[in-house]
Amino acid sequence: MPTTSDLDSLLPGRVVTDPDIRAGYAVDAFPQARAIAPGEFTVVRARDRQDVVTTLRYAARHGIPVVPQGGRSSTTGSACAAPGAVVLSTERMSSMQIDPVERVAVVGPGVVNRDLKAAAAEHGLAYPPDPASSAMCTIGGNIATNAGGLCCVKYGVTADYVRGLEVVLPGGEVMRTGRRTAKGVAGYDLTGLFVGSEGTLGVVTEAVLRLVPAGDPPLTVLAVFPTLEATMAGVAALRDERHTPSLVELLDGASVDAVQAYGDYGFPLGAGGVLLVQSDRPGHAAQDVKEYAVSLTAAGATEVAVAEDRTEADLLLEGRRVLNPALRAKGDRFIEDVCVPLSRLGDLVLAVHEIAGLRGLEATCGGHAGDGNLHPCFFYDRTDPASVAAAEGAFDDLVRAAWALGGTLTGEHGIGQQKRPWLAEELGEPEVGRQRAIKAVFDPLGIMNPGRGIA
Amino acid sequence: MPTTSDLDSLLPGRVVTDPDIRAGYAVDAFPQARAIAPGEFTVVRARDRQDVVTTLRYAARHGIPVVPQGGRSSTTGSACAAPGAVVLSTERMSSMQIDPVERVAVVGPGVVNRDLKAAAAEHGLAYPPDPASSAMCTIGGNIATNAGGLCCVKYGVTADYVRGLEVVLPGGEVMRTGRRTAKGVAGYDLTGLFVGSEGTLGVVTEAVLRLVPAGDPPLTVLAVFPTLEATMAGVAALRDERHTPSLVELLDGASVDAVQAYGDYGFPLGAGGVLLVQSDRPGHAAQDVKEYAVSLTAAGATEVAVAEDRTEADLLLEGRRVLNPALRAKGDRFIEDVCVPLSRLGDLVLAVHEIAGLRGLEATCGGHAGDGNLHPCFFYDRTDPASVAAAEGAFDDLVRAAWALGGTLTGEHGIGQQKRPWLAEELGEPEVGRQRAIKAVFDPLGIMNPGRGIA
Repeated sequence: MPTTSDLDSLLPGRVVTDPDIRAGYAVDAFPQARAIAPGEFTVVRARDRQDVVTTLRYAARHGIPVVPQGGRSSTTGSACAAPGAVVLSTERMSSMQIDPVERVAVVGPGVVNRDLKAAAAEHGLAYPPDPASSAMCTIGGNIATNAGGLCCVKYGVTADYVRGLEVVLPGGEVMRTGRRTAKGVAGYDLTGLFVGSEGTLGVVTEAVLRLVPAGDPPLTVLAVFPTLEATMAGVAALRDERHTPSLVELLDGASVDAVQAYGDYGFPLGAGGVLLVQSDRPGHAAQDVKEYAVSLTAAGATEVAVAEDRTEADLLLEGRRVLNPALRAKGDRFIEDVCVPLSRLGDLVLAVHEIAGLRGLEATCGGHAGDGNLHPCFFYDRTDPASVAAAEGAFDDLVRAAWALGGTLTGEHGIGQQKRPWLAEELGEPEVGRQRAIKAVFDPLGIMNPGRGIA
Repeated sequence: MPTTSDLDSLLPGRVVTDPDIRAGYAVDAFPQARAIAPGEFTVVRARDRQDVVTTLRYAARHGIPVVPQGGRSSTTGSACAAPGAVVLSTERMSSMQIDPVERVAVVGPGVVNRDLKAAAAEHGLAYPPDPASSAMCTIGGNIATNAGGLCCVKYGVTADYVRGLEVVLPGGEVMRTGRRTAKGVAGYDLTGLFVGSEGTLGVVTEAVLRLVPAGDPPLTVLAVFPTLEATMAGVAALRDERHTPSLVELLDGASVDAVQAYGDYGFPLGAGGVLLVQSDRPGHAAQDVKEYAVSLTAAGATEVAVAEDRTEADLLLEGRRVLNPALRAKGDRFIEDVCVPLSRLGDLVLAVHEIAGLRGLEATCGGHAGDGNLHPCFFYDRTDPASVAAAEGAFDDLVRAAWALGGTLTGEHGIGQQKRPWLAEELGEPEVGRQRAIKAVFDPLGIMNPGRGIA
């Protein structure tokens, strides 16, 4: 167990000495997170690479676990403080350089996703990865989870935009992966290994991110369906469009009701389901959303409205973005992150409410319908052990349903603490063994974020 | 050293017994390849995964090196037979399934790049990675080198399209990386590790590849410049276009002359340099190429011609694709594959002819100008040791010039045998050690393609 004073003398001003402030670093956005007491962990707020090197060197020397932390928006507990650990926050490492000629951004891990988008936009460029939490999540966290979000149907995930990384390994060695050039194949590309590694291999201190030419300001269609089945027919109809929407988000009726209970974002109550669909295609967004509206009507939508202006469109999108806090306000819940092949999404959606019915639970179902990745929630009463057990059972049921449909238990949130019981079953024991051997190449002491993900 | 009869009894009909046929498997397209005698190696032509398993199990048991082989179009010697090795050809593993709903192709490693493109096109989809050798190179080889080609300026490289792999490891274990769903983050994603690994970790037996909606049939502009400097001004001008071209290929005057000597592909003789530029933007290709033509003229092109029809455009592109055989016909040469930041490409191009001048050699300079990756060649007389030494010196000079410009010695061809002397200098010794430790996780006996790439 490190003493705060030890690290404080090595890193004056970087160690959080006030226990009240330290308490704020105890948990991330994992609903089942258990906050440990601020006396049980140390917090270092690194300002630069050297601070990270010093911290990791110290941790290795004393065999102390390290929990890297960004914006603490993880829903899986991958960034919760652990007893005896050093929480290494990179939130202050927020340098940012945009190179419009090379179309890259070179950023610190603490840069907030939305701030990078804004900086890129000043050059007519875009950084597409777009978690719902983009106003608070950091690039370091996005890389740790290979974050996706609302853009993936057209633009893919974080891994598709990370060209290279600077990483500090346990013990303090600095390594670089990937490249700054558009192409490069000298040696193995270890970038993909770090993207999605949930802080179990090292700490990212700089990322070279690919930017793309900005699309047009997106236009939005809101389609309202009488049933969830009809809603899924709408999703399927969009797959036949030649011009892929830049966003296809699903909210079932219960999700819409929760959002509207949280604030008036312009959604209709009592629907079976709604779809938010956007186009940002240069010069053609208006034409696209008109065509999407026709397809969605043909698929059975009872109301299809093209947002008349950016304000209205932004409000709808904001409604989608507040889904997570809106559901948090509704009560205790387990958050799923299953992802299935597109052709099986309708089956997955049906499974959610079927499982909830069998388990006697309330459920919501929403998420990134365009790429087969949903975030269903099962609600329970934490004071009732039977209710807790039912919700745990429902979580497991849905994971197995996703597997049976050819899917995975996690599309973008990662394993964290939450999904460790299922990891070996999804990957198989030989693969877990191999992945742990790879981890050992970087972290032979096993001090990087132990108990999370593969670690 | 394996006896052919040993393997033949395990894999009847898969082992090449005719020495003349075996001789055809001795070398790839590396100009400096040295063909070993057909008695010195064994060739297995695998028909399915089980054949690969059997071969790798046998090789591990006997400690025999294995050289995976696809279309043998590697320019670096990464697929040349080695003394005492089993050459494991996957060219016959050419199963191919297109799933238009999921927009993926599930293919064997022996599928020829162009055949996959054609199959995807039948569904209105495209597989963008497009090496100049697409008519003969295989997907297995494309994955082994992370091949790029003519599409990268808009569409990226092979790694951007590989969603998951099935790989047989030394010893015969079958592993899977990645996923078939659009997203998935359970455990480390090892896909990126295998893409570009040059056959040093295992043998890919199946790939899940992402397809994209097809663009329009591309339209082509040919721009002719009086000097190479002016040509590079044309490249720079294109970077300011809002709609990124789908292809920006450079040929200097000497490259054009070599192509026209090889066949009449419609290029003008005596130019300082030419650019081939395409757009495939749906509904706007004609508008784009017109705008590119204006920009290229403003940048100093003396002749700018929009190909009037597909036949003319295809002929020009075919001229670009035959550059490699055309240069081979010209004489012995070293092929470079340097890649630099886009803003430094003009400096790299100048360096090629400056180095050639200082070394008293003939040189050509062409390649993928849109992404900073060029394939300059230095010509020499193999019967004259001084000429050979001068060409070797020029190769080294240009690698160092690329490094000085912030680039890499290999954009897409890989290390193979050719670039091993420079690898540790580019990566640094600690990184080489780390990468070898990772290799050892998969190939503890060190039998996968030893002497190539990092191995």
